[in-house]
Amino acid sequence: MNRSITIEKLDQMPIENRQIEIVERKGRGHPDYIADGASESVSKALSTYYLKTFGTLLHHNVDKGLVVGGKSRPFFGGGEVNEPIQIIVAGRAVTQVVKKGRIIPIPIGSITLGAIKKFLRENFRYLNIDLHVIVNYMIKPGSLDLVKTFDTNQKMPLANDTSFGVSYAPLSQTEKLTLETELYLNSSLLKKKMPELGEDIKVMGLRKNAHIDLTIAVPLISNLTPDLDNYISVKEEVKNRVADLATKITKLPVDVHANTADNYDNGIFYLTVTGTSAEHGDDGNTGRGNRIHGLITPCRPMSLEATAGKNPVSHVGKIYNILAKTIANKIYNKIDGVTEVYIKLLSQIGKPIDQPMIANVEALLEKGTKLNTVKGDIKCVVNESFTNIKQVTNDILEDRTLLF
Amino acid sequence: MNRSITIEKLDQMPIENRQIEIVERKGRGHPDYIADGASESVSKALSTYYLKTFGTLLHHNVDKGLVVGGKSRPFFGGGEVNEPIQIIVAGRAVTQVVKKGRIIPIPIGSITLGAIKKFLRENFRYLNIDLHVIVNYMIKPGSLDLVKTFDTNQKMPLANDTSFGVSYAPLSQTEKLTLETELYLNSSLLKKKMPELGEDIKVMGLRKNAHIDLTIAVPLISNLTPDLDNYISVKEEVKNRVADLATKITKLPVDVHANTADNYDNGIFYLTVTGTSAEHGDDGNTGRGNRIHGLITPCRPMSLEATAGKNPVSHVGKIYNILAKTIANKIYNKIDGVTEVYIKLLSQIGKPIDQPMIANVEALLEKGTKLNTVKGDIKCVVNESFTNIKQVTNDILEDRTLLF
Amino acid sequence: MNRSITIEKLDQMPIENRQIEIVERKGRGHPDYIADGASESVSKALSTYYLKTFGTLLHHNVDKGLVVGGKSRPFFGGGEVNEPIQIIVAGRAVTQVVKKGRIIPIPIGSITLGAIKKFLRENFRYLNIDLHVIVNYMIKPGSLDLVKTFDTNQKMPLANDTSFGVSYAPLSQTEKLTLETELYLNSSLLKKKMPELGEDIKVMGLRKNAHIDLTIAVPLISNLTPDLDNYISVKEEVKNRVADLATKITKLPVDVHANTADNYDNGIFYLTVTGTSAEHGDDGNTGRGNRIHGLITPCRPMSLEATAGKNPVSHVGKIYNILAKTIANKIYNKIDGVTEVYIKLLSQIGKPIDQPMIANVEALLEKGTKLNTVKGDIKCVVNESFTNIKQVTNDILEDRTLLF
Amino acid sequence: MNRSITIEKLDQMPIENRQIEIVERKGRGHPDYIADGASESVSKALSTYYLKTFGTLLHHNVDKGLVVGGKSRPFFGGGEVNEPIQIIVAGRAVTQVVKKGRIIPIPIGSITLGAIKKFLRENFRYLNIDLHVIVNYMIKPGSLDLVKTFDTNQKMPLANDTSFGVSYAPLSQTEKLTLETELYLNSSLLKKKMPELGEDIKVMGLRKNAHIDLTIAVPLISNLTPDLDNYISVKEEVKNRVADLATKITKLPVDVHANTADNYDNGIFYLTVTGTSAEHGDDGNTGRGNRIHGLITPCRPMSLEATAGKNPVSHVGKIYNILAKTIANKIYNKIDGVTEVYIKLLSQIGKPIDQPMIANVEALLEKGTKLNTVKGDIKCVVNESFTNIKQVTNDILEDRTLLF
Repeated sequence: MNRSITIEKLDQMPIENRQIEIVERKGRGHPDYIADGASESVSKALSTYYLKTFGTLLHHNVDKGLVVGGKSRPFFGGGEVNEPIQIIVAGRAVTQVVKKGRIIPIPIGSITLGAIKKFLRENFRYLNIDLHVIVNYMIKPGSLDLVKTFDTNQKMPLANDTSFGVSYAPLSQTEKLTLETELYLNSSLLKKKMPELGEDIKVMGLRKNAHIDLTIAVPLISNLTPDLDNYISVKEEVKNRVADLATKITKLPVDVHANTADNYDNGIFYLTVTGTSAEHGDDGNTGRGNRIHGLITPCRPMSLEATAGKNPVSHVGKIYNILAKTIANKIYNKIDGVTEVYIKLLSQIGKPIDQPMIANVEALLEKGTKLNTVKGDIKCVVNESFTNIKQVTNDILEDRTLLF
Repeated sequence: MNRSITIEKLDQMPIENRQIEIVERKGRGHPDYIADGASESVSKALSTYYLKTFGTLLHHNVDKGLVVGGKSRPFFGGGEVNEPIQIIVAGRAVTQVVKKGRIIPIPIGSITLGAIKKFLRENFRYLNIDLHVIVNYMIKPGSLDLVKTFDTNQKMPLANDTSFGVSYAPLSQTEKLTLETELYLNSSLLKKKMPELGEDIKVMGLRKNAHIDLTIAVPLISNLTPDLDNYISVKEEVKNRVADLATKITKLPVDVHANTADNYDNGIFYLTVTGTSAEHGDDGNTGRGNRIHGLITPCRPMSLEATAGKNPVSHVGKIYNILAKTIANKIYNKIDGVTEVYIKLLSQIGKPIDQPMIANVEALLEKGTKLNTVKGDIKCVVNESFTNIKQVTNDILEDRTLLF
Repeated sequence: MNRSITIEKLDQMPIENRQIEIVERKGRGHPDYIADGASESVSKALSTYYLKTFGTLLHHNVDKGLVVGGKSRPFFGGGEVNEPIQIIVAGRAVTQVVKKGRIIPIPIGSITLGAIKKFLRENFRYLNIDLHVIVNYMIKPGSLDLVKTFDTNQKMPLANDTSFGVSYAPLSQTEKLTLETELYLNSSLLKKKMPELGEDIKVMGLRKNAHIDLTIAVPLISNLTPDLDNYISVKEEVKNRVADLATKITKLPVDVHANTADNYDNGIFYLTVTGTSAEHGDDGNTGRGNRIHGLITPCRPMSLEATAGKNPVSHVGKIYNILAKTIANKIYNKIDGVTEVYIKLLSQIGKPIDQPMIANVEALLEKGTKLNTVKGDIKCVVNESFTNIKQVTNDILEDRTLLF
Repeated sequence: MNRSITIEKLDQMPIENRQIEIVERKGRGHPDYIADGASESVSKALSTYYLKTFGTLLHHNVDKGLVVGGKSRPFFGGGEVNEPIQIIVAGRAVTQVVKKGRIIPIPIGSITLGAIKKFLRENFRYLNIDLHVIVNYMIKPGSLDLVKTFDTNQKMPLANDTSFGVSYAPLSQTEKLTLETELYLNSSLLKKKMPELGEDIKVMGLRKNAHIDLTIAVPLISNLTPDLDNYISVKEEVKNRVADLATKITKLPVDVHANTADNYDNGIFYLTVTGTSAEHGDDGNTGRGNRIHGLITPCRPMSLEATAGKNPVSHVGKIYNILAKTIANKIYNKIDGVTEVYIKLLSQIGKPIDQPMIANVEALLEKGTKLNTVKGDIKCVVNESFTNIKQVTNDILEDRTLLF
């Protein structure tokens, strides 16, 4: 197959050499993360149901969502949620299938409510699904035209849209540190040791030349935090543990800051009853949080597509972002002489998804490496990845790839 | 004032010299644009009300929104909307003010509903606000802590968050073309000549070396399009007019494509009753559309912050993006030798907004221009812009700056 | 046709001779009336659409509704609505028709929203539909089984339920007075003379032996009521006018009371911005207001069925109540010797609606009149009315009968 | 205290001697019952919380509600709920209390959601609260004026409205039978023996002279009903058991009918997945179901007030109906010579609730009993009951009285 692949040598300062780098990670309990998680949980549950019931993965797109913050009253040693968080997942999906003239309805409601509540139960320890959340959905039957386009029995799905995927490799030290800090603070291992740490952890990494500032916002569970002394000591432990972690990821000096908006004199601490700031006024939307590497990286090219909630078969806004990441990682890991690589993939609506309108590779090369030397290998990786593009669907359904 | 300003020389290929450029513009009637427009209209109406009533602009943040697509049945010469579009704006705002011991409630409902409906009436000609849309809102009183932070009587507002603004100048030819194409097709002048053109216009620009493909999706108003012949001739006229426009913007050859998903044999055209695809299943979220230049530009650094709906006084996620654009434009326009400039501004929560944690300028320089030659001028522009940062609020309220 | 008709002589005290009579009328702007009006407006609009489009009246039942009160701040000479009234009509309806293999969708959304807003516009002068109300609906496609039952091409519709209709004739003096008072105060003629009178008028009539107390709650439009003096004088005029009216309806002495909850010292008046107490916290449900005579009459037999919103073809909960009223009126008006008459009609699910399970007539007779003398005439009226039962549908659609 | 009590001798046919009697009972799983149950559960939970936290029962009125039916697909041996039931409770309540200058918020959301879900869990065995229901609420802070009226520290609460309560004693045989049939079929004892019986049981009793027809609609749980044979045999057992029960309640011959809308040939059975018809399109409203005796009795005087959801301290629409029932029962049980008694109580807004505007007693007396003989005793019962009116609040909170 003759794919439209362009490969360029990139003449630019390597990311680590630039003066400034800004990186953000919205952790598991952030309202935007909840919106993403809710949308994606519904997509995954629908996909599983479609596959199990009909042997094929039917059209859906639930990549819009709204998390409306509640009202809570946390205080040292206690607290309550006065008004619940509201979660709405919106989009469309195949809600009935005609098979041999018989209409088979799909229990869209049970699937959707079940998926979102399962996501919440798995991600929060102190959020009472019965009392603290109202889960709702606004999912319509898919547009007929798109449904026509979406014929899953064919060998290769057709792109449902003109859309692009963007990624790069490798992560910079600041990026790794930002990502790993949140994953560590939200790891089940640490949660056992420090159950006070809420899930709505946000990490902001700022590298200024050879120095990194890592700013962490971490809500403490009010019921488990009896007083200010306790609050302070937990914050200190967080800072110390993250400082430790940092030494394993980077040799650059790292300053760790925690809950910098605190103002003890004015009674301002970061306490939550449930672990998420959504309990008190913070709202979220799907597609507003982390990109495909789990980070927000204004110094790097990004896609604005939400990966969460899109169907993992034909929705290029999801698949091409994952594929771009996979290609970037493979090129960086397997091909000597490539020090940084940026991938942009553009789809053509209605064409098989393994035939992009353009697949663009920009590579920073080691001193001495010529583009011609690596061009063949790069092209090979790109081609291989497109040939195996259906693998992306499985990677998503079997949780083998980070989406946000 | 001693601001933390860093200025770097950028060693990278100018945008116009790269092999590939991808640019997208979601036009005025796109569901994500509607979500942005709804959120921003509410912020503007609240700001105006606060200023008029209390002499100061009170806290609010309504930067989350959901547009849930309806169901429609357009056909040549007619059509109807079977289920309405639902629009929800979410967030928080000051809903009552205590003045001399008396509680003064703010008519948040009338302001919000009025603002969104006004936005819709001004932007759509064939959307019946009574019959085709349900407008709702979920706005809670703001978190008390943030309200404390937000003291508008002080000389300089305090940043409400750790957040960043990102922008650049100048627009590339492909970017200009993509933006201008949508503005032209949605201009009131052209709408008079070609009333059939719906508002939900999406433009995708792809430059491959020295050639641009411009792909336009434009819905035709079904009531004004009697038959396929008419449909085809309107599409042709759109292509011709845009090709004309292109010659005024770029010397590169431009291929214009329109409604490429059409398939006449299968009865697939892009017809709408109301002018927006939200009438039939397409959903939207605030903050998912165009960035501060009115474009989505994966080849350029971008911020993920929604500008729409944030308060224009203290919300750095809004103000810093606008300021970054202003600074970039000023540097590019006023300082000789700078051919491209990229700005990143990072705030410090709780600090005055004119004191960024970092203001980073990266400049591509003309051959022969040294960084030291322009550094002073650049710093001067940055400092001046921060000194006049309160001007940004006025620019927003008086519609002097594009937000999305 | 041999109908199951039972006719009894009633040995009881005539209503006018009883010591106590209590009667209530919830006027046009009462939240429960709004809920009824909204449901019924949708039924009527659907019926009209079905008839016009398909030549037959299809199944629907939208007899459930919710009016959620808003928040307002009326004051002498002004006022504003801070949070809108929310109106939801719920039920089911045929939303698509299959005709010759083609699916024809019905614009249920436009019909529903249009009908409710039209009802509001026709019934309120100071309710701003754009700013003061959010109209929504939750209407599902009808249960298939019921749809099967509902075959409109047959000669006589089948009862959709086991349900009963209840009515009587004539109205007592207290009933007439209570009803006419509201109709007069809400008449367009009086509204021109006294525009200050809001629509949410509630009248309670209490007859104690030979004396009637008429208690009226009438909200004044705050914008049209500059001060307390004005408020008091309008109240006085209302009382005087109603006292006048009373002399035309009854010879009993009538005391008229208005807004008895007022407490000028504590600043409690009955002012509204819009004319309805729904603007500030008063909620409503369909089917909770007036019965088929336009009154709530605990001293008389009543049905608990909501007439509002039920389809006017096969829903016996609607049709049998109207028919009962018609039969009662005819018997009372046409048959000499009958001084009071009570009708109970019970349907059989699945049987033609002109074949009730039971039609029971209880008659109070003039001294000297024997049941046998009038039995034949009564039976004749009942039979005739059932034979012409389809006329009820027309009476509803053409507004010839009061429903609530 | 000198109360306005009127006592009349009623000259009318005793209920058992009339030719026709129609009685209905909407059972525990009926959509209207669910609406009542949801509203009342919230009132009770609020009352309990207010009492526990503030030592007094604060104002609330949540007597409006909406149950929107879902979509389900029951079949013999299985079934699923495709779209959930939606339950909304509306009204107002005190949501914050100012105590010594400090605002104490009340967790209205947790209380409301918790109460409704508890009600559902206690009343349904096969309704999955997570997957089959969306529970929501629209409760606003109470109107300030009413809050002022509602001063709970005073000796006697003030009536919040002009409203009436209506009741009678004793129940007729048909009434007893109708009520007891539902209670028996929904008893936990029988549910253990016949788990297939769903909760949405509706009983209609029709007495025609000396013969009773008892028509029962009882949904079978589809998962527990493997096939038609099973369905038929369960129906038979229901009929037999109810026929048995009937012999203990009345000596009149009783014909029992079950699920008369069934049509085996057309595949119409009454199967449900969850036990309530709300799972498939049947909607409900608060206040539309059973009156204070647990029955709908068009042959008897009835109040249209919803008892469910009203506050049990000052809301006369609730308290006066219960008091009327209590008074009626006491008079009938304690005073010889009274064979039927009807009570009507009318409140005066703003007056202490133990001072009705009128308390009217109508008594049918045994042959030979004179009104004057019993008048004193009746007056005594009425006076005593009003003196102890605060006991009604406790009876409600401690579940000692049937409300609907």
